[in-house]
Amino acid sequence: MTERSPARHVVLAYSGGLDTSVAIRWIAEQYHAEVTALTIDVGQEGELVGALDRAKRNGARDAILKDAKRPFVEQFLWPALKANALYEGIYPLSTALARPLIAKTLGEAAVTLGADAVAHGCTGKGNDQVRFDVALQTLTPQLRIIAPVREWNMNRSDEIRYAQTHGIEIRATHDSPYSVDENLWGRSIEGGRLEDPDEAAPEEVFDWTGHPETWPRTPEEIEVTFEAGVPTALDGEALGPVELVRRMNQRAGAHGEDRVVGIKSRETYECPGAIALLEAHRALETLVLTREVLQFKAGVDRRFADLVYEGGWFSPLRESLSAFVDATQSVVSGTVTLRCFQGSARAVGRRSEHSLVSHELATYGTADAFPSEYAVGFIHLYGLPNRLAYAKRSTGAGAAPDDGRAARSVPHRA
Amino acid sequence: MTERSPARHVVLAYSGGLDTSVAIRWIAEQYHAEVTALTIDVGQEGELVGALDRAKRNGARDAILKDAKRPFVEQFLWPALKANALYEGIYPLSTALARPLIAKTLGEAAVTLGADAVAHGCTGKGNDQVRFDVALQTLTPQLRIIAPVREWNMNRSDEIRYAQTHGIEIRATHDSPYSVDENLWGRSIEGGRLEDPDEAAPEEVFDWTGHPETWPRTPEEIEVTFEAGVPTALDGEALGPVELVRRMNQRAGAHGEDRVVGIKSRETYECPGAIALLEAHRALETLVLTREVLQFKAGVDRRFADLVYEGGWFSPLRESLSAFVDATQSVVSGTVTLRCFQGSARAVGRRSEHSLVSHELATYGTADAFPSEYAVGFIHLYGLPNRLAYAKRSTGAGAAPDDGRAARSVPHRA
Amino acid sequence: MTERSPARHVVLAYSGGLDTSVAIRWIAEQYHAEVTALTIDVGQEGELVGALDRAKRNGARDAILKDAKRPFVEQFLWPALKANALYEGIYPLSTALARPLIAKTLGEAAVTLGADAVAHGCTGKGNDQVRFDVALQTLTPQLRIIAPVREWNMNRSDEIRYAQTHGIEIRATHDSPYSVDENLWGRSIEGGRLEDPDEAAPEEVFDWTGHPETWPRTPEEIEVTFEAGVPTALDGEALGPVELVRRMNQRAGAHGEDRVVGIKSRETYECPGAIALLEAHRALETLVLTREVLQFKAGVDRRFADLVYEGGWFSPLRESLSAFVDATQSVVSGTVTLRCFQGSARAVGRRSEHSLVSHELATYGTADAFPSEYAVGFIHLYGLPNRLAYAKRSTGAGAAPDDGRAARSVPHRA
Amino acid sequence: MTERSPARHVVLAYSGGLDTSVAIRWIAEQYHAEVTALTIDVGQEGELVGALDRAKRNGARDAILKDAKRPFVEQFLWPALKANALYEGIYPLSTALARPLIAKTLGEAAVTLGADAVAHGCTGKGNDQVRFDVALQTLTPQLRIIAPVREWNMNRSDEIRYAQTHGIEIRATHDSPYSVDENLWGRSIEGGRLEDPDEAAPEEVFDWTGHPETWPRTPEEIEVTFEAGVPTALDGEALGPVELVRRMNQRAGAHGEDRVVGIKSRETYECPGAIALLEAHRALETLVLTREVLQFKAGVDRRFADLVYEGGWFSPLRESLSAFVDATQSVVSGTVTLRCFQGSARAVGRRSEHSLVSHELATYGTADAFPSEYAVGFIHLYGLPNRLAYAKRSTGAGAAPDDGRAARSVPHRA
Repeated sequence: MTERSPARHVVLAYSGGLDTSVAIRWIAEQYHAEVTALTIDVGQEGELVGALDRAKRNGARDAILKDAKRPFVEQFLWPALKANALYEGIYPLSTALARPLIAKTLGEAAVTLGADAVAHGCTGKGNDQVRFDVALQTLTPQLRIIAPVREWNMNRSDEIRYAQTHGIEIRATHDSPYSVDENLWGRSIEGGRLEDPDEAAPEEVFDWTGHPETWPRTPEEIEVTFEAGVPTALDGEALGPVELVRRMNQRAGAHGEDRVVGIKSRETYECPGAIALLEAHRALETLVLTREVLQFKAGVDRRFADLVYEGGWFSPLRESLSAFVDATQSVVSGTVTLRCFQGSARAVGRRSEHSLVSHELATYGTADAFPSEYAVGFIHLYGLPNRLAYAKRSTGAGAAPDDGRAARSVPHRA
Repeated sequence: MTERSPARHVVLAYSGGLDTSVAIRWIAEQYHAEVTALTIDVGQEGELVGALDRAKRNGARDAILKDAKRPFVEQFLWPALKANALYEGIYPLSTALARPLIAKTLGEAAVTLGADAVAHGCTGKGNDQVRFDVALQTLTPQLRIIAPVREWNMNRSDEIRYAQTHGIEIRATHDSPYSVDENLWGRSIEGGRLEDPDEAAPEEVFDWTGHPETWPRTPEEIEVTFEAGVPTALDGEALGPVELVRRMNQRAGAHGEDRVVGIKSRETYECPGAIALLEAHRALETLVLTREVLQFKAGVDRRFADLVYEGGWFSPLRESLSAFVDATQSVVSGTVTLRCFQGSARAVGRRSEHSLVSHELATYGTADAFPSEYAVGFIHLYGLPNRLAYAKRSTGAGAAPDDGRAARSVPHRA
Repeated sequence: MTERSPARHVVLAYSGGLDTSVAIRWIAEQYHAEVTALTIDVGQEGELVGALDRAKRNGARDAILKDAKRPFVEQFLWPALKANALYEGIYPLSTALARPLIAKTLGEAAVTLGADAVAHGCTGKGNDQVRFDVALQTLTPQLRIIAPVREWNMNRSDEIRYAQTHGIEIRATHDSPYSVDENLWGRSIEGGRLEDPDEAAPEEVFDWTGHPETWPRTPEEIEVTFEAGVPTALDGEALGPVELVRRMNQRAGAHGEDRVVGIKSRETYECPGAIALLEAHRALETLVLTREVLQFKAGVDRRFADLVYEGGWFSPLRESLSAFVDATQSVVSGTVTLRCFQGSARAVGRRSEHSLVSHELATYGTADAFPSEYAVGFIHLYGLPNRLAYAKRSTGAGAAPDDGRAARSVPHRA
Repeated sequence: MTERSPARHVVLAYSGGLDTSVAIRWIAEQYHAEVTALTIDVGQEGELVGALDRAKRNGARDAILKDAKRPFVEQFLWPALKANALYEGIYPLSTALARPLIAKTLGEAAVTLGADAVAHGCTGKGNDQVRFDVALQTLTPQLRIIAPVREWNMNRSDEIRYAQTHGIEIRATHDSPYSVDENLWGRSIEGGRLEDPDEAAPEEVFDWTGHPETWPRTPEEIEVTFEAGVPTALDGEALGPVELVRRMNQRAGAHGEDRVVGIKSRETYECPGAIALLEAHRALETLVLTREVLQFKAGVDRRFADLVYEGGWFSPLRESLSAFVDATQSVVSGTVTLRCFQGSARAVGRRSEHSLVSHELATYGTADAFPSEYAVGFIHLYGLPNRLAYAKRSTGAGAAPDDGRAARSVPHRA
């Protein structure tokens, strides 16, 4: 694989970190190509503008910043929130949701610029390369995909040496063993001691949630208002989508909410706003959706999360799952009171004009409005199939229970 | 329960049969109410107009015929077809799909007429009363529901005697032990020897499909054209929805297609057009939907059928399932060739501009376009988790297989 | 319903509270029957022995205490734990799991004593009557079921007046608006202000978890050891099942863990040990089960919880779900470190000889052991179906992407 | 890839066809290895012994025949039958079920013979290579896998030329464009005109089912007896597993039952015995399993079929699914009458001591045994959630229906 067929113009998804800084030069050399560095703003922290200047000094033909925060929230985070998207029940998919957006934006930029290839900094292990490549191949199959880190054989020291040899300017960086990915929906931290599932994450890996000693000693309540499944206001103040997520990260993050230890291995997540909004959304759904919708939607939500984790955002299945989810959300409007305290956010109050709870009947003492014969009839028919199944079991084909004459509560006329 | 609080004006879903003929008078007597007979045409055979005259002679204040065939097909049958709705995998839900339409039409008529109650002829056993009552209570909760057959204690002989005593004119009827329900989507037959699941259905219960000796000795091919999941033409001839279903019943029915023995017990179905269209739709879907859509949709389709069978047509869950289904159908356009022969219809050809099958690669001899290394890489990563799971099993925590170093094909960066 | 056909000997599930204290006399009067009071110890707090004496003074022919704590844990709680049973994702089903055990024990006692009826104190609303009646009808269909509270029309004041009039000795009780059910797996509190879903639960309803001001300021770590899905030791100390659950309630409860606001409405739960054990079990499963098992088991677990909530413990489906679950648990052995702190317990470390994580490959720098061509091949085939589906979409039937020649990664020879 | 590291001793899964005949010599040359030819009898037709002699004459060090028919039926076909395994609802997985058995037998033979590699004849496209490789890597990871057809670049003409050049004796073969795989559970035919999904399969591809003109003009009934989900007798005659499947193929096959056109593309199946047994098993299950078991099992069955199709036989998930299935089968005992006629087999009668149908109640006229109040109560509570959901919808939060005071049929005490 030493001989690579040349590319003409490569648009690189550029983060400003070591990998993609080195990649600018490496791609130019290996593919005899011009390289445009594209930084996509999905709410990551850090000085993006300085990184762009550095990219140009390091050989990029051009360096472009694209603000994608609003489409990120509206087209990716809100659909995920409506689907209660928590992979394995714990991870809000912050990195997994940003990848398809970045791939789409990257591919569109390459088409616009007339480039013949795109490049990303994923390694040859892990889900991220799958998400990038699958999205790119699906949306812009005419573009060649270059993955420098997957193709070369450099480790971190090699990269630093390559940078020094080639006069590549890299960000002064403390020698952290961790790799961090960050956007509006959360931070993912991997590497170092986090590789060992039996090691608790050290305090140093956290950033958005301060040290436990700084967490307030008193709870803070936040009212989140939803319209059709989408949050629109905090404490009654209407907020745009980007601002709302940011504000939620700050407020819930201040209470340390919510640090999650990764799945099977190896990542630690810090997603305070996401976790708090997901808790509020879930609590509102239980108030307004019927039990049979909740039960079936649980399976849809789970499939949605698995699919997004595995790189399937741009797929007919994901779109169809979203159609189901959207159809359920028209009644998910109302207000949830979250109580943030010491590392967790709990829904402690919920109200909605679509509430299926009715205060009157719930109260003791009004039972007479509701004939107890109804309950007796319901129970009789509801339990009939199991009753008969067990009767057969205990007695063979012999004595059936006196009333167990049919297998179904409601047998005739299908 | 002998004393009944009076009603004012009752709209009765009137079929013209013995039960509802007797019910006109019985309701008038028991509830001191005026009765309007409403016959809803969902494609059942029989002289509906004569029945209306009889209703008036039997004491109905008015007798009305409403043609609901087109909404039945467009609003109930097509959504069911798109969901491949076969209860327990065999029953096209012909009766179950008509019930909510009839209940809705009945309730709307009662509201329009200013009536305070509706009545239907269901017995106190079986799913039909559930479907009627639940739909009526959901859509028109302000209306009282009267179910004469469920309330009175008459069997068939009692009813005939009641008719004679009260001078009620009933249709001359051969003394059939069977109860039949019929509409555009099929016939359901129950009663008599069909009660015994170990008895084959006698030839006499069938009507739409002739005697096997009359079935043609040569197959007949029918081309069904679909647009977005809905059939629009037969053999290239564009047809309206009602005519298309009718034509399909005749053509597939002539070959005896498709008689189905009921579930657990007790019904026999004769639904030639429905079964043939469902087979064609299913065959087209396998050509144009991705495997992951087909797999998830199988569960959605199953839930849809169960829900409709159990009376849940008018429910948030059914609507949301339909939203999923509809989202999958945009590519379900194309033409299927059915071969009808001796009691069954099979899809023997399928074509679509959305076909996911590509003729070239499928053909032997072009393997070189498709690097076999891709397959080796795929298999290696695809099989990794099970490989490691079994390695642990056989050896305890000891020797891992040489390449089994990770539990997931694509481990990093969630 | 004033006239009741007499019973001979009724065994009453007796809690010692107001309802069942009054019921002893009421049943005797209404049914002309002898009443045996049976108290079943499932770990509820309170002086059970004193209650038995009181039952006899109040007219019971006999009063019996049966210790069912160990079968409760082994036959009900452990199967639920293995199925990660959390109804709607939040409620550990403490009350729902005890009901079938109590019903079974009650029915068996009645059969042993030669009684012809059983009685329980459920109201005519709610799931508890369903759980009791269905279990009793399934297991001991020959017994008549009497539900005094459902049958009579007394509210709390009526009951107290009835007790005074009839000289029934009742426990001196502060006039709490709450109704509490308690066993080893948790406390459920309902009534009073809890009826309103928009009201946060007041501090006074909590008992096992102290006031937040008493929660320790430093985290506590607990090591939970599992064998085949069942916890067997805490901090390395082997414990019997009852003792283990108790110890967990105390230790996690001291940190306030974990108070849950109920579903749709109306209950508040306090289940510190259950929640902590469920968190530990879930965390261990993600370490040792393959992704495809985790994904399918999520649906099984959800169905299990729904079914138990709805009264279906004794059913062929629950038994079959448990068979699936048990088959997955042979590798769920290992140790989880929980960190309890300020109202929540989080798994922060996990180790198992069946771990599917392999430390070596996870570490950066060994990528060369794992050919990146494998990943490229995997991605190519994995993404093929969606790639082709989108190509069709954008171009009609026209230009397929250059490599999109087949709909499936692995097309031939089914 | 021209240079291959040598193997020592390769055990080849040998069918006697062109591919594997040529492979003996090719492997010996390319890998400088000794080759043992292993033919595994899974019920395929053809003179296996003659093929073994030919293998030796063509250079195999040894040629071995292993009869695996009984383990094939007992360990693979019966579990699949119990799971109603039909991929996409139509294909009985005949080829897919044999692959893991062959891979297991091949690997075990290689270990026994002290070989260091195994070889199979799969191409580099399609599922079969996945099934072989994944099973081999899982069970015998220490063995190297060689796939000559995937590795070389020969088409059919190349292979014949290679055979002629190297003096390889091949079976005289008419120049069929089709590729056939055959075992006890069915025949799969691919290639030629079958590649085009819009072409009906030509008559010439069928072998087990004769020409339609030969199908009897009168139906034939076959009684199939099951014990715990497994067929044990035909027409009352107890038969061993292999003989039973064979007999069923002959009897159902004589009536042309059941030819299936493949999925998405490209295969045609001829599986008369499998389809007939699956129909009988399904029909018996609907008689004896409760509705909630049938509904959940439908999803388990579907996952089972998908998993087996995709090569996952040897996996923790398949084993756990089988545990669920087995737990449901204890009551699947009884006798089904199949009617075979003109290309299809239908269950027309069913009896079982575990039947959940009860003849008495089903019959009209005994309704009085079953209070109609039960039905009214059931319907009232069953329909409550949807009723309230629609009430909210139509009126906003305003007027609730008079009885719609609670969202759940059975609200209290979770």
